[in-house]
Amino acid sequence: MKKEIINDKNHIDGQQGIVIGRNSVAEAYRAGRSVEKLFVQKATESGPIESIIKQAKRAGTVYSFVDKSRLKQLCGSDQHQGVVAFVSDYSYATVDDILQAARDAEEDPFVIVADGIQDPHNLGAIIRSAHQAGAHGLIIPKRRAVGLTQVVASASAGAVNYLPVARVTNLTQTIQELQAKGLWFSAADMEGESLYTCDLTGPIGLVIGGEGSGVSRLVRETCDRTVSIPMKGKIDSLNASVAAGILMFEVLHQRENK
Amino acid sequence: MKKEIINDKNHIDGQQGIVIGRNSVAEAYRAGRSVEKLFVQKATESGPIESIIKQAKRAGTVYSFVDKSRLKQLCGSDQHQGVVAFVSDYSYATVDDILQAARDAEEDPFVIVADGIQDPHNLGAIIRSAHQAGAHGLIIPKRRAVGLTQVVASASAGAVNYLPVARVTNLTQTIQELQAKGLWFSAADMEGESLYTCDLTGPIGLVIGGEGSGVSRLVRETCDRTVSIPMKGKIDSLNASVAAGILMFEVLHQRENK
Repeated sequence: MKKEIINDKNHIDGQQGIVIGRNSVAEAYRAGRSVEKLFVQKATESGPIESIIKQAKRAGTVYSFVDKSRLKQLCGSDQHQGVVAFVSDYSYATVDDILQAARDAEEDPFVIVADGIQDPHNLGAIIRSAHQAGAHGLIIPKRRAVGLTQVVASASAGAVNYLPVARVTNLTQTIQELQAKGLWFSAADMEGESLYTCDLTGPIGLVIGGEGSGVSRLVRETCDRTVSIPMKGKIDSLNASVAAGILMFEVLHQRENK
Repeated sequence: MKKEIINDKNHIDGQQGIVIGRNSVAEAYRAGRSVEKLFVQKATESGPIESIIKQAKRAGTVYSFVDKSRLKQLCGSDQHQGVVAFVSDYSYATVDDILQAARDAEEDPFVIVADGIQDPHNLGAIIRSAHQAGAHGLIIPKRRAVGLTQVVASASAGAVNYLPVARVTNLTQTIQELQAKGLWFSAADMEGESLYTCDLTGPIGLVIGGEGSGVSRLVRETCDRTVSIPMKGKIDSLNASVAAGILMFEVLHQRENK
């Protein structure tokens, strides 16, 4: 799943590849690269730029209009021709790829949804745990969450090369589509039923919340039930990747002992 | 358990307090502060310095002899009089404090041993999980492991204020002393028995290995048995704090359902 990086020397913080200029950005879309973010110079109307914006809309890229000086700052050059794109070093899968992975394994689908994880070390650890727990893939949202950066890949200890990760615009809608295909969704929530008394076998989606905020209200209400980890301590919760690991491995344990 | 920081403005990386000069360092020892590291100027023989080295040996502080220029670099001043010490912002408990916490709760002791965790985020997450899983304390080694720094405290989400953490010179010896008091020690190891078939009730010590290296051979051989988390994926292991969380919460689950 790993791809080589476009214009490696222009890496920002070693996390993403950067693509500069109209032809290069258009080519990145044509080649099916995952464009994480697109910056377009304000008040630049031209055929090529409009065509890039169309591709961005089609691909669901988050884009924004910025000043010329901001573009120069982003890419360290005046050669941007009004567009700068950040591409992921790793390519994303689709939700269908994840379901196909379950079919290939002749298993009930086991899908993890990470709702708004912002710490790349946590996302990497979740990818690692998900792969080791036998999940068929991970779904993350396009906004307000970290994507597949180098730091995430490294924290995943290589699991990012095995686990399909899909990025979607609307988590709630994706969950509803998967529910229509027979998956039962459980959201991690402190008020939920104990994971040990829940039946976590069968086609399952497990939704993990972000650091601090937990699973968002709309997503939680879309899920079929909430599950919790019974705890004894005086603080509220666990680290997001630790909680995710405990829940995923209980799913694996129940699936293996059915 | 939190103490105010000596000479706050001299924090290095915001992780530790720094104490400079013979009287201040001697006073830090007299006040029972946790001195994490001591740096002594090479070839400085004097009564006060020798007395500080004696206190360092008694307290088990890791110390080293360095050049005058290194001392200046460490504390940003020429006023060090040949000694610079780094003190922890949090005070350590003793192993007896941990056993007392179990007696106070009228529970069988449940002790976590972290053998060589070097990433402060992992140690913080382990402290957080240990407290939430109802463990009575954590034991860490003095060498080749991170101590109770500000980053660890912050990653523990406040749990460091509730969970006693003891730091010992010789993990193997501490484990043997606790075995003599009736604790059974289980070391996390990929070759171990499945945690789901192990009886993890009763007085228990759970030993977690460091990132990459796992539980060291000597410590593993001192333990009564090894336990593993059954996994499906193509990579070796889980993140250290995730593996620790899964094991600790299985202990809690078994204890609560005995």
